[in-house]
Amino acid sequence: MATRRKERSGIITLTSDFGTAGSYVAAMKGVILSINPGACLVDVSHEISRHAVFEAAFVLSSCAFNFPRGTVHLAVVDPGVGSERKLLILEEKGHLFVGPDNGLFSLVISSGWRARWIRARPFFLCQVSPTFHGRDILAPVAAYLSLGRQPEEFGPPIKAVKRFRIPRPRRLAGPSRELAKGRKPTSELEGEVIYIDAFGNLVTNVTREHLAKLVGWPFQAKPRTGLQLAVALGDKKIYGIKVSYFQGAEKEVIALFGSHNFLEVAVRKGSAAQVLGAKVGQKVRLTMDKR
Amino acid sequence: MATRRKERSGIITLTSDFGTAGSYVAAMKGVILSINPGACLVDVSHEISRHAVFEAAFVLSSCAFNFPRGTVHLAVVDPGVGSERKLLILEEKGHLFVGPDNGLFSLVISSGWRARWIRARPFFLCQVSPTFHGRDILAPVAAYLSLGRQPEEFGPPIKAVKRFRIPRPRRLAGPSRELAKGRKPTSELEGEVIYIDAFGNLVTNVTREHLAKLVGWPFQAKPRTGLQLAVALGDKKIYGIKVSYFQGAEKEVIALFGSHNFLEVAVRKGSAAQVLGAKVGQKVRLTMDKR
Amino acid sequence: MATRRKERSGIITLTSDFGTAGSYVAAMKGVILSINPGACLVDVSHEISRHAVFEAAFVLSSCAFNFPRGTVHLAVVDPGVGSERKLLILEEKGHLFVGPDNGLFSLVISSGWRARWIRARPFFLCQVSPTFHGRDILAPVAAYLSLGRQPEEFGPPIKAVKRFRIPRPRRLAGPSRELAKGRKPTSELEGEVIYIDAFGNLVTNVTREHLAKLVGWPFQAKPRTGLQLAVALGDKKIYGIKVSYFQGAEKEVIALFGSHNFLEVAVRKGSAAQVLGAKVGQKVRLTMDKR
Repeated sequence: MATRRKERSGIITLTSDFGTAGSYVAAMKGVILSINPGACLVDVSHEISRHAVFEAAFVLSSCAFNFPRGTVHLAVVDPGVGSERKLLILEEKGHLFVGPDNGLFSLVISSGWRARWIRARPFFLCQVSPTFHGRDILAPVAAYLSLGRQPEEFGPPIKAVKRFRIPRPRRLAGPSRELAKGRKPTSELEGEVIYIDAFGNLVTNVTREHLAKLVGWPFQAKPRTGLQLAVALGDKKIYGIKVSYFQGAEKEVIALFGSHNFLEVAVRKGSAAQVLGAKVGQKVRLTMDKR
Repeated sequence: MATRRKERSGIITLTSDFGTAGSYVAAMKGVILSINPGACLVDVSHEISRHAVFEAAFVLSSCAFNFPRGTVHLAVVDPGVGSERKLLILEEKGHLFVGPDNGLFSLVISSGWRARWIRARPFFLCQVSPTFHGRDILAPVAAYLSLGRQPEEFGPPIKAVKRFRIPRPRRLAGPSRELAKGRKPTSELEGEVIYIDAFGNLVTNVTREHLAKLVGWPFQAKPRTGLQLAVALGDKKIYGIKVSYFQGAEKEVIALFGSHNFLEVAVRKGSAAQVLGAKVGQKVRLTMDKR
Repeated sequence: MATRRKERSGIITLTSDFGTAGSYVAAMKGVILSINPGACLVDVSHEISRHAVFEAAFVLSSCAFNFPRGTVHLAVVDPGVGSERKLLILEEKGHLFVGPDNGLFSLVISSGWRARWIRARPFFLCQVSPTFHGRDILAPVAAYLSLGRQPEEFGPPIKAVKRFRIPRPRRLAGPSRELAKGRKPTSELEGEVIYIDAFGNLVTNVTREHLAKLVGWPFQAKPRTGLQLAVALGDKKIYGIKVSYFQGAEKEVIALFGSHNFLEVAVRKGSAAQVLGAKVGQKVRLTMDKR
């Protein structure tokens, strides 16, 4: 038991769509601290858009592994509370994730995960309300895990959990639109905006790897052909990839790889989401193009 | 002293209407940690509507007792700062509440409470500004309490504190409007919306006990009479009580008992406050009615 | 080393313009806790207006020294991320400030400060992204400092840091406008609004010292002359200085010295910013005037 306890960092992160105006988050924290008074509680976000499981999954995956191994990540974006959806403990890379089985952990798990179905009532609060499993089941489970309890104590293993993936950018083969205009055929990649951050930066699903396959590394203008990487979003076409936000002129729309490791469209000292009127789901096209 | 210290959890919760954009909350936390560097600080909410004492009282009461005994709850919603209103330490169920005497703790106290009037200047900051007693008086008092200091060290006992109660639902006796239309007389209950949560759920002052007195338990349709419990709010009439948010169809207006243990009017995957244009104070009528 | 560790409080405060909806703040906290699992993390504000370095400096200076000596203050409002701007460790009054060299610490430093240019890569995360130095450089540096590492371990001393000052109120000499109307010439002070708090209180750059020089102390009506201190902001003229917000009638526009120790224009149970349509930068004039 002593060694097992050492496997835990004592840290519990919290992610939800509860907002911070009311008492829901504090109620969960009170329950946790009643079980593990030494827990170190860290908010990831409680301003996930209501019921936005993908958004929560993305936010959580952007910071979970910055925490030390043995951290318990409690996530409650749970539109199905009161339905027959399962509650899970999921292990991945030495971290423990606790929440509903609705895809919340899709972006933190790869091939090595294991999961348990939370079934062991002795760990729950005495009274379990049908409307707030975050407080009555998940918070106490997270607290016991942070004390060194093992996932297998909470319920049977499960082999399949609900998962979604970040949509993959599509490679558009064959002659492109450019060809019709008499230019050289170029390969194209069609990605999309998957997240918009607090600064209005548009995070797409395009990684450095996707881009390297398309145009080779580094993503520079090809001197011989005069072709340059172009990122098109709606009517807007952006040439070249910047390294940091600072490299754009003020209010210039730029493309760069942000801290999420995805291609972002950004406006220096401005909001790309506002300037371009862009939304999650909007398509971006990457081509090699003449300016 | 040692045993007394054990009576404290070391946890201090904070509730205010200060918002989180400025430095007011951090100033209080800095003062607390300067006195008790080991304090565990937990925000309840700093987004209480400005000067909304009832709202703060409701939010605090919804989570205070989820924390372990010996927790100090610091609450600063204090429209009377600088006036002659008293500052209090209030004990209830092994928890300590620190704040102005304006009704903030009305909903956490029942019959067993004791209170002290905070008067002992040695515990205050050297300079007490007339505009920020939260930082200069209440934060240090909360910190000293969390270290194991006893309420009686801070000032004289007081017998009466300012209190308000959640308004009780009214039983409307005699023949109801239904009777006028030639139906069987039914008893009615008139409650009201007392709080709207972050999801737009309308929390009323009607408890299961109120409802059981009206219609018996469980609140089901009476097969013999064809009567069913109906919740009316403005033009909207809702039949039956659901168990969880999930049971409604999408966008359906439903009634259920929420995690605050009050009757709520909710919209699944929507905001009842928005859909119904409802505000705190709006009346709800409960009747047994034919659908 | 043991004694040095004692010089640290173990507390790290965080100030940024990241908002709290996404993962940026949590990513920094995860990095810190991976290095110092015992750190006590306290948010000052993450709702600084985007890239508003002066606002951040003001908010930080309003609470930094409420924390115990040995606290590390991490501040990331960094429009120049990715440019050649320096990153700093700044010592002042036994506190350590970590952030970009863009004036963020202007209002916490006086004559005794010392600074280091952060250069020592071994303290950074292995991979430093060009877009998020808060997570990859500043968070680990703050964490190591909180463990007792000394500023000199992180880079060379620097003699000059970017600084701005709170603009000083101007004394308007000579005959005032009042004189033109045949009244006695009076001295005038022209200040400005430098910060607006969450309540809409307008914080100016006028201190008690400025006012005492203008009209003597205390700032009372002069019985012999019938003159009274008047604060003019746009069309609005306020007579006399109140002691607390409570002293105003409801919705009355009042002037008082707030907890920031600057003259504020406030509206009891209202927002002066809204009522007066005032913004940061707006001028206020102080005169001795007949009502």
